[in-house]
Amino acid sequence: MAEILETIARRQSVRTFSDKPVGEEMVQVLLHAAQCAPSAGNQKPWHFVVLQDRQVITRIPEFHPYSAVLLKCTLAIALFANPEEELFPGNWPLDCAAATENILLQAEALHLGAVWLGIYPEEERMQNLEALLEVPRNYRAFSVVAVGHPAEKPRFPERIFDSSRIHYDRW
Amino acid sequence: MAEILETIARRQSVRTFSDKPVGEEMVQVLLHAAQCAPSAGNQKPWHFVVLQDRQVITRIPEFHPYSAVLLKCTLAIALFANPEEELFPGNWPLDCAAATENILLQAEALHLGAVWLGIYPEEERMQNLEALLEVPRNYRAFSVVAVGHPAEKPRFPERIFDSSRIHYDRW
Repeated sequence: MAEILETIARRQSVRTFSDKPVGEEMVQVLLHAAQCAPSAGNQKPWHFVVLQDRQVITRIPEFHPYSAVLLKCTLAIALFANPEEELFPGNWPLDCAAATENILLQAEALHLGAVWLGIYPEEERMQNLEALLEVPRNYRAFSVVAVGHPAEKPRFPERIFDSSRIHYDRW
Repeated sequence: MAEILETIARRQSVRTFSDKPVGEEMVQVLLHAAQCAPSAGNQKPWHFVVLQDRQVITRIPEFHPYSAVLLKCTLAIALFANPEEELFPGNWPLDCAAATENILLQAEALHLGAVWLGIYPEEERMQNLEALLEVPRNYRAFSVVAVGHPAEKPRFPERIFDSSRIHYDRW
């Protein structure tokens, strides 16, 4: 009996964390998982800024309207890439999206909670994050993943499979 | 000891498949996994065209230069979205990228092989795939995932963790 991978089924956006910090070993595992993502022509354009300084993390909500989770969060991982270094132009956001999804799934596998905060393609958020983290010229911000130990045990998410989105051989 | 999720570590692009078809139950599990992906504001913009007709699948390499894998493949899943229906404009490619990565990871978990064939942002490939699959106006093509039983047992992929891509608190 084929079954959906439990990590994929359980992953959900978690926005309430306990005060317990995420151990350094777990941080490294999240970064390894991110680097296992597929990318166009294996170009691996991603850079990661690990945010553990509360004074930096809590400044993001000043310019990101949906990031209040960061006010009570002890770890965030920000993703960047340099579009000018691409081997396959225009793919860096897709590569970074796959890496972001890997971080979310790996967090679930570690019984952590996480949520993907969108930066790209909102130009203002991108510029603000790049300035805050002193990112070199030409590198562009993609996402911020807030990570922590869930404040309460998450319930198994309700999934509605939408069969109207499935077509066979032609639309 | 925190460990990287085996499915994430083992996933790799597989381009050589046996003749054994992928069972319908597995197809459904892949589609469920895709729909478990995160999306901007939970907008879930994705549509899936399940390709099992060899006469359709084998036409894709006529316009896609890196898709020879499809000539010997019995299942492919094509992803689409309608940018004009978005709640959060500009995010559909990211949502579809996360769904594509979920399909790849779920395939690995089922001991299938798979490879992400890029369609978006190559306008010509997009238009050709939309025409081939008779996709309604305004829906745009994102990716094709080729899926099959691997012709040979894949070796555990060699991963090089690039610590030069990791920065702390600021770049």
